[in-house]
Amino acid sequence: MTDNHNYEEYKTILQKAADLNNATAVLSWDQEVYMPPKGAYFRGRQIATLAGQAHELLTSNQLSNLLDELQKDEGLNDLQKANIQRSHEDLQKNKQLPPSFVEELSTLTSECYNAWIAARKKNDFNMFAPFLKKMVALNRKKASLFGYKEHPYDALLDEYEPGATVAMLDRVFDGVKSELPPILKKITAATQVDDSCFGAYFPKDSQWNFSIEVLQAMGYDFEAGRQDYSEHPFTTSFSPADVRVTTRVSEHDFASLLWSTIHEGGHALYEQGLPESEYGLPLGAAASLGIHESQSRLWENCIGRGLHFWKHFYPILQARFPEQLSNVTLEHFYRAANKVQPSLIRTEADEVTYHFHVLIRYEIEKALIESTLEVEDVRARWNELYQKYLGITPPDDKTGILQDIHWSHGSFGYFPTYTLGSFYAAQFFSKAQDSIPDLLQQIERGETTELLNWLRDGVHKHGRRYYSEELCERVTGSKLDTSHFLTYITEKYSKVYGVDFTE
Amino acid sequence: MTDNHNYEEYKTILQKAADLNNATAVLSWDQEVYMPPKGAYFRGRQIATLAGQAHELLTSNQLSNLLDELQKDEGLNDLQKANIQRSHEDLQKNKQLPPSFVEELSTLTSECYNAWIAARKKNDFNMFAPFLKKMVALNRKKASLFGYKEHPYDALLDEYEPGATVAMLDRVFDGVKSELPPILKKITAATQVDDSCFGAYFPKDSQWNFSIEVLQAMGYDFEAGRQDYSEHPFTTSFSPADVRVTTRVSEHDFASLLWSTIHEGGHALYEQGLPESEYGLPLGAAASLGIHESQSRLWENCIGRGLHFWKHFYPILQARFPEQLSNVTLEHFYRAANKVQPSLIRTEADEVTYHFHVLIRYEIEKALIESTLEVEDVRARWNELYQKYLGITPPDDKTGILQDIHWSHGSFGYFPTYTLGSFYAAQFFSKAQDSIPDLLQQIERGETTELLNWLRDGVHKHGRRYYSEELCERVTGSKLDTSHFLTYITEKYSKVYGVDFTE
Repeated sequence: MTDNHNYEEYKTILQKAADLNNATAVLSWDQEVYMPPKGAYFRGRQIATLAGQAHELLTSNQLSNLLDELQKDEGLNDLQKANIQRSHEDLQKNKQLPPSFVEELSTLTSECYNAWIAARKKNDFNMFAPFLKKMVALNRKKASLFGYKEHPYDALLDEYEPGATVAMLDRVFDGVKSELPPILKKITAATQVDDSCFGAYFPKDSQWNFSIEVLQAMGYDFEAGRQDYSEHPFTTSFSPADVRVTTRVSEHDFASLLWSTIHEGGHALYEQGLPESEYGLPLGAAASLGIHESQSRLWENCIGRGLHFWKHFYPILQARFPEQLSNVTLEHFYRAANKVQPSLIRTEADEVTYHFHVLIRYEIEKALIESTLEVEDVRARWNELYQKYLGITPPDDKTGILQDIHWSHGSFGYFPTYTLGSFYAAQFFSKAQDSIPDLLQQIERGETTELLNWLRDGVHKHGRRYYSEELCERVTGSKLDTSHFLTYITEKYSKVYGVDFTE
Repeated sequence: MTDNHNYEEYKTILQKAADLNNATAVLSWDQEVYMPPKGAYFRGRQIATLAGQAHELLTSNQLSNLLDELQKDEGLNDLQKANIQRSHEDLQKNKQLPPSFVEELSTLTSECYNAWIAARKKNDFNMFAPFLKKMVALNRKKASLFGYKEHPYDALLDEYEPGATVAMLDRVFDGVKSELPPILKKITAATQVDDSCFGAYFPKDSQWNFSIEVLQAMGYDFEAGRQDYSEHPFTTSFSPADVRVTTRVSEHDFASLLWSTIHEGGHALYEQGLPESEYGLPLGAAASLGIHESQSRLWENCIGRGLHFWKHFYPILQARFPEQLSNVTLEHFYRAANKVQPSLIRTEADEVTYHFHVLIRYEIEKALIESTLEVEDVRARWNELYQKYLGITPPDDKTGILQDIHWSHGSFGYFPTYTLGSFYAAQFFSKAQDSIPDLLQQIERGETTELLNWLRDGVHKHGRRYYSEELCERVTGSKLDTSHFLTYITEKYSKVYGVDFTE
């Protein structure tokens, strides 16, 4: 192909915006990990300025005109066409929201977040409710501005999981609702797992060093990334050549650091695997939150809580912590790593009960957006659903309806991507075992390179070229199929708890 | 005063540019202290994009028109007028350089820097010379584009030290040339100082902890800053509320960390003392490099290498390092901290011989810019001047003419600000002792708050409101007067070396 002046100009605009957005990511990362407290005010305005400059570039008439031209351009290759298609969709979406609406939403978000912080402190949902009410109203409006075919919630979902719909999610959560309760019931009735081994004293530095080793073993490139401490673990990317993870440490809860490192490592491997040549363009970005989560959960759960992984790593871990673990067998450790127990806090839930937490939020969000539930009744509904699905009732708002940040940010449609991630992960992992027949033996030897290459080739390198379900179909031969997750859970937990779920 | 729409608009533009430039500073800081190696390429383009966006704002017609209007505006208060005056000067200066020239210079700078790196590696000035030749030529051109009254070098100086001229510097360096050689001669002939105490083993963490304590004692606000490690120590500011320092540690050279921390701490106190209300505006920025250096050198040398300071801190230091220092007396330690010895490397020089290093560079730069010296002859001149002023000749280029980064960056006119800094420091410190009669007693008690407040009030809070010499006159009652530095040196080193310089 000859040089295409329009395409180069388009690329320049998008890459400049990416530079600004990646700089914002550096500023945010610093804010979480190193910034001194008084720096917050000016940091806030610096981030706002950079975001504003990026937004100007991405909503400019110049870009709009270029995209119009480029959509008609027959000379582009397939990758270029895919970039133009995605950028066109992004711009159309951006255009649906008038600047006045964007401003109103941004102001409310800031107020709503502060209200959530204050309400959490006082443990009082009533302080948050009026703001949440406004936030729901603005999100209903947002849905109508974006437009939708079947359900207003579809329009919101689309921001996090392009192509996903209520119809698709209902299908997924029907699986959760019908299949998981009997499994959970049998687990609860079985002999319980003792996970007290994680509560021994594990010195901070030794935990840290082990986490670095695990990241290295996963294939995370420390020449193109680093791990730091932060209050809440996260992954952030400034380019595929600089993708950072954070973790937190508690000296009497080794499990917390261990699986959060592996989880973030999974996210980071995806970002490190995005094509550098497509920097700043849609094909250089992750496909969706659900696909992103599929990578973190595949590593965290399918690999990192699997017996095969620990056959290799547990002797190493034991040698590192002889006092704490010499009396804990591999079998015991493996069961402890997979303890199932209904609990109140989503982020601390095991991989079976986790999806009830998401289901509850999904049902509430959907009802709020379709106006079949009012904010006044949300707490009651929350508590009722926790009782229904998990058999427990939050004693207060902090461990109940005020636990998540998402609604204070106005992120309706985000939660379901966590469950989609687990389901995609199970489907990918199942296919990986077909494609790499000795995969589990490789994992037992601590070798995950072939798996990583398989993920790179099937998922990472495509960026946003395909929608999630299309990508899933290309990788596994079928669209999202909930049976993979349910089979994975059944097989694993029948062993962990010694229960036959088929009876 | 009523709200002035033009002034608000002007402020918005400058503060947006400041946000972009401060974001660049965060990216650069991260690059030096934490960035993984592969991140360099994309970080480079991110920094370039941000710099470009800031430049666009600062050279926009909108800003130019606003400044034209505001210069005629009688309704502004004095601070506002001062901001407008400085911004007008900045813009006029920016306008003198056509974009094609700026681009040429930027490209050459990058080539020239790479050539310097390569030449240093091979220890061969000849590899660097052709690039330096081009750099000198472009800087001659720059001087003529900026324009000047008396000497082309004045135009270049102005970028680092507004208002400074060759006439003024010649006066300063005449003092160096006439007064320091006899002092150095007597010191060299006296009983030499033993500074081997710094070479004992001082564990990294303990050095670090002590440096943090010293910064705290100086009044550096850790709620608005932090210290990290980097290859070369530096100070950087993202706002007055987030000013960071870096240091480096060598376990057998405690002196390196100690005084570099105090030096950077001095820079940082200045930046933390700039007025937040003037963020992004000239009055929110440091007056000049010379004034900046005056703050770092006042703390490093006048305070941090002074006997009074160590009367308080040495017992603490000894208690921290009993094995290494219990046999070293305060008097011995103080003399070691002030050892004078001609040496090859500027950055490692003591406060007497340091100014010969600067003088040599100043003479060479001036001659290059006025075309009385050609690049071909620079190495010979360098070596000749080292022999003349310091009695030593570099054995190679690495420890000679290739030691500094400045020329590879095209920074002609920068070096003299180091010497100006020391001279301003001595003058400020002398005045501070007049203004605070028991200052030395306070320092002996480890109290520097009153001094810091005096510096805040006299220097820091004014930002760029006054040119350096005007500021100096306001603070001390007279323009830069070299006698303060020479008196300071004479008094101090006659004690350190037990020599009478008046004989």
